Amino acid sequence: MKAVTLHGPFDVRCSTVPDPAVLAPTDAVVRVVAACVCGSDLWPYRGDAEAGVEWRMGHEFVGVVEEVGSAVAAVSAGDFVISPFSWSDGTCAMCRRGVTTSCLGGGWWGGRDREGRPVDGGQGEYVRVPQADGTLVPVPDGRAAATEELLPSLLTLSDVMCTGHHAAVSARVTPGCTVAVVGDGAVGLCGVLAARRLGAERIVAMSRYPDRQAIAVDFGATDVVGARGADGAREVGELLSGGADAVLECVGTGESMRQALAAARPGGTVGFVGIPHDVELPVSDMFQRNVGVAGGVAPARIYLPELLDDVLARRIAPGRVFDRELPLGDAPEAYDAMHSRKAVKVLLRP
Amino acid sequence: MKAVTLHGPFDVRCSTVPDPAVLAPTDAVVRVVAACVCGSDLWPYRGDAEAGVEWRMGHEFVGVVEEVGSAVAAVSAGDFVISPFSWSDGTCAMCRRGVTTSCLGGGWWGGRDREGRPVDGGQGEYVRVPQADGTLVPVPDGRAAATEELLPSLLTLSDVMCTGHHAAVSARVTPGCTVAVVGDGAVGLCGVLAARRLGAERIVAMSRYPDRQAIAVDFGATDVVGARGADGAREVGELLSGGADAVLECVGTGESMRQALAAARPGGTVGFVGIPHDVELPVSDMFQRNVGVAGGVAPARIYLPELLDDVLARRIAPGRVFDRELPLGDAPEAYDAMHSRKAVKVLLRP
Repeated sequence: MKAVTLHGPFDVRCSTVPDPAVLAPTDAVVRVVAACVCGSDLWPYRGDAEAGVEWRMGHEFVGVVEEVGSAVAAVSAGDFVISPFSWSDGTCAMCRRGVTTSCLGGGWWGGRDREGRPVDGGQGEYVRVPQADGTLVPVPDGRAAATEELLPSLLTLSDVMCTGHHAAVSARVTPGCTVAVVGDGAVGLCGVLAARRLGAERIVAMSRYPDRQAIAVDFGATDVVGARGADGAREVGELLSGGADAVLECVGTGESMRQALAAARPGGTVGFVGIPHDVELPVSDMFQRNVGVAGGVAPARIYLPELLDDVLARRIAPGRVFDRELPLGDAPEAYDAMHSRKAVKVLLRP
Repeated sequence: MKAVTLHGPFDVRCSTVPDPAVLAPTDAVVRVVAACVCGSDLWPYRGDAEAGVEWRMGHEFVGVVEEVGSAVAAVSAGDFVISPFSWSDGTCAMCRRGVTTSCLGGGWWGGRDREGRPVDGGQGEYVRVPQADGTLVPVPDGRAAATEELLPSLLTLSDVMCTGHHAAVSARVTPGCTVAVVGDGAVGLCGVLAARRLGAERIVAMSRYPDRQAIAVDFGATDVVGARGADGAREVGELLSGGADAVLECVGTGESMRQALAAARPGGTVGFVGIPHDVELPVSDMFQRNVGVAGGVAPARIYLPELLDDVLARRIAPGRVFDRELPLGDAPEAYDAMHSRKAVKVLLRP
């Protein structure tokens, strides 16, 4: 089959790789209908994170179950399914506590399963899914639901919408509160949508790109601040009388975290979901101002059912973050478009 | 009047200082009935924090209102009052949001008021209280309530019980959850009591001192772990199947914070109230395990009324943390007893 592989900085290819098969009774094989490129894929793409030889890329996909192992009960061949960006058994002590990303029997796309066998990336024609029962979420009446209209929104539930929601939940967004969102990538934009969905009264999107500002406003931002860093935080403070109750940090750099902390009011919380790169937390400032920091890698599997309900009911349309679609074979162009900010998020069709 | 002053490392004295008076219409003067020494007083006592010349010490006191300024309406001469460990106007944007420690018109005992005038410390015969309406909490039927039995518990509401409660609230203690408490000083012990009060099912007190372990068990600890650091955290993990939902960090050192973070389960929260000294937060580990850090200097004024209700109704008796009482003139002995761990917390009588 074809799958996207990384060979070095700025060198992604659509390669021929072995076809997957059911290897364990708990496995399923999914034929990918749509995948996409994530902001976090850009770190290894740019060479900022360690990349192995021919690393299999991607962790977001939706598709149709082709085959299941003998122990799989929750999905069947023919089901249209959404996969969260990590796989998990759904039964361990961590999954039961809602932290599927810390699953004792789980792991990551493009990594290894617990028996040491390679696991496919999400950017490919097929994916072997370990722990299929715990991982995959079937879409009710799935083939009908997966219309061209809904497909992009369903695909965001694989990662970015759940991750934006995690930022909002971690930042303790509650009805009537004030929010600032640092980061105008797909996750930040979904964070705006999540904050609106949770009832925030004022939502300040921090973005200086008109195309992204427009999506943020569509998603419920009441204000847009183009300034960054201390200047941007000051503007948020002026708009929200001393800072935001909840700040969503959706970038992961030292600069973005400083901006997020400075935009929080005393007693506020920063929900952070950007993979941290060179981030230091100013603990004395956090202590004096009672600003908490919570978040991390989103347990998308936990959030997926409730957000799926809202997508199917047309209450949210996070698929708006996709502004480009390419065939899987054009993955290099997709990566370049996102790296150079020519696209917010690119959908890939195998 | 007499008041406790710090002159250098390990050099506290009971000195003669100017009598306070009402200087602003919003002031009150309180005759102190009981004060005490805080773990945080030991930092400057040991020379670990910058100390000015003749620094006025103490920030916890209860007493009787002697005189009020013309603008004071909430308390009157003769009222028995509890003072939180910071003063605040109760009306600014931060106070209205429940963060009285970030009051735009407030400040700290032993510091300066907004006009630059010195403010008394809590360890003295009298205290001038700025922003008396926002700061002081009158005890209903106060003189009757302030019996010898209740006095120590009322005094804990000035700081340590509210601070332990803040740790528990910040760590998101909820009914049925599991808790670990790092620190067996008065704040940590009150944290145990606060966690029990909030409905925690399992509470692991981390302490290696039998006298403190005994108070922790009285306060509701279900388990005691004597080991520290990684070993202690491992024991908590074994007791609580992977770590505590909520960890209360009540010390403030790098070691205690590492212990607290390691004792938290994935998805758990560390509520920290120990003033941080050389603390670094391991942001990547927090991210991977979804462990949040929240807390800071406790807005005691906000918590005081609800905790006061419980003290008056004999539902909690945090005064158990006081295991020694001395006259104000013996303040040097009180500091030495706490510094050398011969006492958990010393009550001072002017």
